[in-house]
Amino acid sequence: MKPLVHPALEDITVEGMLHALSDPIRVEIFASIANSGCSANCSSFLTVGEKAIPKSTLSQHFKVLRDAGLIRSERLGVEMQNTSRCAEIDTRFPGLLPAIVSALKTQSSERAATRTGKKGKARG
Amino acid sequence: MKPLVHPALEDITVEGMLHALSDPIRVEIFASIANSGCSANCSSFLTVGEKAIPKSTLSQHFKVLRDAGLIRSERLGVEMQNTSRCAEIDTRFPGLLPAIVSALKTQSSERAATRTGKKGKARG
Repeated sequence: MKPLVHPALEDITVEGMLHALSDPIRVEIFASIANSGCSANCSSFLTVGEKAIPKSTLSQHFKVLRDAGLIRSERLGVEMQNTSRCAEIDTRFPGLLPAIVSALKTQSSERAATRTGKKGKARG
Repeated sequence: MKPLVHPALEDITVEGMLHALSDPIRVEIFASIANSGCSANCSSFLTVGEKAIPKSTLSQHFKVLRDAGLIRSERLGVEMQNTSRCAEIDTRFPGLLPAIVSALKTQSSERAATRTGKKGKARG
């Protein structure tokens, strides 16, 4: 079985993390792992943002997050458990990931408010 | 002359900003504008990170930063003046851009230290 590769903390780059998080699905997966605190397995993300995601696409997203150094994945039987590396990264880049996760929360609640507002109104 | 388009503050997305900043050259240009405080014209970036950049590539980088909502560009005669929209964005996503700029500073100083270290040592 192919080993899971995780970059060393000192090899993680800001551009690499920003690239991994610049995809709307990936950033949602990451925010969810970072917020949950506990490890999450891949299949718990089969629906992200109300859309069903093929398992192969999901694996690819997890690989990008892992390669960027944002998450740590471990095989547990047939499942893959993922935890965020926030705490570790925070020692090198203090406040970076909390700021990104918090900005995403703001954006999600704004979007939810817009959706609710639109649903409530009949189009004229 | 084509007008310069800037997205409204409420249309700026976190993913869009992270995408624009996931390119090493662009992130360096942005950090430099954000740190300088005063406006910078495009040609002052013809060498970024010790490499000469063709003017057309540079224009494209500025366009990506502008479209993501990160900078504001103004034509002044034949020159283009660029200022960061950090203050504005900070009202919607507090701390996000300062955290990114600060992480980049950390990364640059680490890289500079590594380069100095390598230059000091003869290879064995």
